[in-house]
Amino acid sequence: MKRSVFFLSDGTGITAETLGHSLLSQFEGIDFEELTIPYVDTVEKAWAAVHEINRLAEAGTRPIIIDTIVNKDIREVIAKANGCMLDVFETFVGKLEKELHSHSVDKVGKSHSIVNNETYNVRIEAVHFALDNDDGARTRHYDKADIILTGVSRSGKTPTSLYMALQFGIHVGNYPLTEDDFDDLRLPAALKEHKKKLFGLVIDPERLCAIRQERKANSRYASIQQCEMETRAAIALFNREGIPYINTTHLSIEEISTRILAIAGIKRRLV
Amino acid sequence: MKRSVFFLSDGTGITAETLGHSLLSQFEGIDFEELTIPYVDTVEKAWAAVHEINRLAEAGTRPIIIDTIVNKDIREVIAKANGCMLDVFETFVGKLEKELHSHSVDKVGKSHSIVNNETYNVRIEAVHFALDNDDGARTRHYDKADIILTGVSRSGKTPTSLYMALQFGIHVGNYPLTEDDFDDLRLPAALKEHKKKLFGLVIDPERLCAIRQERKANSRYASIQQCEMETRAAIALFNREGIPYINTTHLSIEEISTRILAIAGIKRRLV
Repeated sequence: MKRSVFFLSDGTGITAETLGHSLLSQFEGIDFEELTIPYVDTVEKAWAAVHEINRLAEAGTRPIIIDTIVNKDIREVIAKANGCMLDVFETFVGKLEKELHSHSVDKVGKSHSIVNNETYNVRIEAVHFALDNDDGARTRHYDKADIILTGVSRSGKTPTSLYMALQFGIHVGNYPLTEDDFDDLRLPAALKEHKKKLFGLVIDPERLCAIRQERKANSRYASIQQCEMETRAAIALFNREGIPYINTTHLSIEEISTRILAIAGIKRRLV
Repeated sequence: MKRSVFFLSDGTGITAETLGHSLLSQFEGIDFEELTIPYVDTVEKAWAAVHEINRLAEAGTRPIIIDTIVNKDIREVIAKANGCMLDVFETFVGKLEKELHSHSVDKVGKSHSIVNNETYNVRIEAVHFALDNDDGARTRHYDKADIILTGVSRSGKTPTSLYMALQFGIHVGNYPLTEDDFDDLRLPAALKEHKKKLFGLVIDPERLCAIRQERKANSRYASIQQCEMETRAAIALFNREGIPYINTTHLSIEEISTRILAIAGIKRRLV
């Protein structure tokens, strides 16, 4: 029997989801059915959410409700639902008001909706930088990169670059290591002058093999022999050149990104 | 005088940052200096954070601390700091344990660190789908797309596609509208058969002009006349073909993405 969880928000719902996932991940062995209802920004929409929650409550156990609704009137409607409500703003805003000697503005969905043009530009610029400098396509902009990821094909360079760009506004280049680079265990010329910006991604050969099989089944590229050889060579190269690296096998993209920034000492620009 | 805010976590710090931004955005006119300390997963690291917090407290007002640290011993160290502490797990986990008749596992940094291979594959696959189908590069995979974004150059299609892929694991294609498409106000042939999947992005001409100026200053492409013409034509095309659209001018990428999913009725796959 699944336990229903509602993430309710007057905005995108991202804060409620993120917080909710953190909390629920602490409970093992319970199967959660997660439902996000964004843009609950009127009393009418709140009642519609209440009916949905009550419907599930009648069919089984009462749902858990995690809400980040700013408006008190709307929250009071949600509180009437047959659920266990974790009310984030109710819980924390009062304490902050006291500490800051300031009243909250009570404006709906502020956090992810405000567009500060400067912030927006930084992120968009970073995404385009990542795309323009993806997969070694171009290396002439590496002087503008904050960091350059390198590793074998499918070690996670591209998704990590894009996540860092979108989440933190960081300029990330990425350069694939290929067999040519392994022959003499030397850094490609394009990377040499930016050695201090390099960060290696390493992945276990078995996992790499599985990922490559998805892409090109039964190819030499996806064979375990090839994956083992490339992985071994990449690690040898990183060690020889003193390039920091991280094993991505058991990490999420969030983990890979934040660990790299922490190790490399790069400041997160924004969220 | 800036008010310092510390986001402390035993993991990536993303949950603390996301929640913290939501809360702080409710207070206008206060200038916050935000500092994230991720991976506070030992008592020693906790003491180091306490010293950093106390140092800033002595130099000005006591900082605000928003923490998502799971381990009680580590949290107790942080509680000794000279700050106003909003302790997320302390606040909510007890209530959840009671409701779920279950103990939290107290494992450090679970939410963003666990790699469920299936989830990881869905996201990576979605990112590569977005890249392969970016900017109208290919249209033959549109049958596998959950949604296809369309709009003029620099209306926000690519960043939105990538965000949707990374955050929600959704397959997004995107197709740029160009002058050719406006001549007869018809949908490009490649889009016609997937009309139900189309979603339009519209942007105010002044904003579009500013964005394009950054890219190609003083070009015809970036001129206000051109931007006005393209914007008008895109809206006319969307209206004529009955394609839903959204004005992205004052929205963040998170807002654009979640609103589109809500309007199009597409279920978020994961976070």
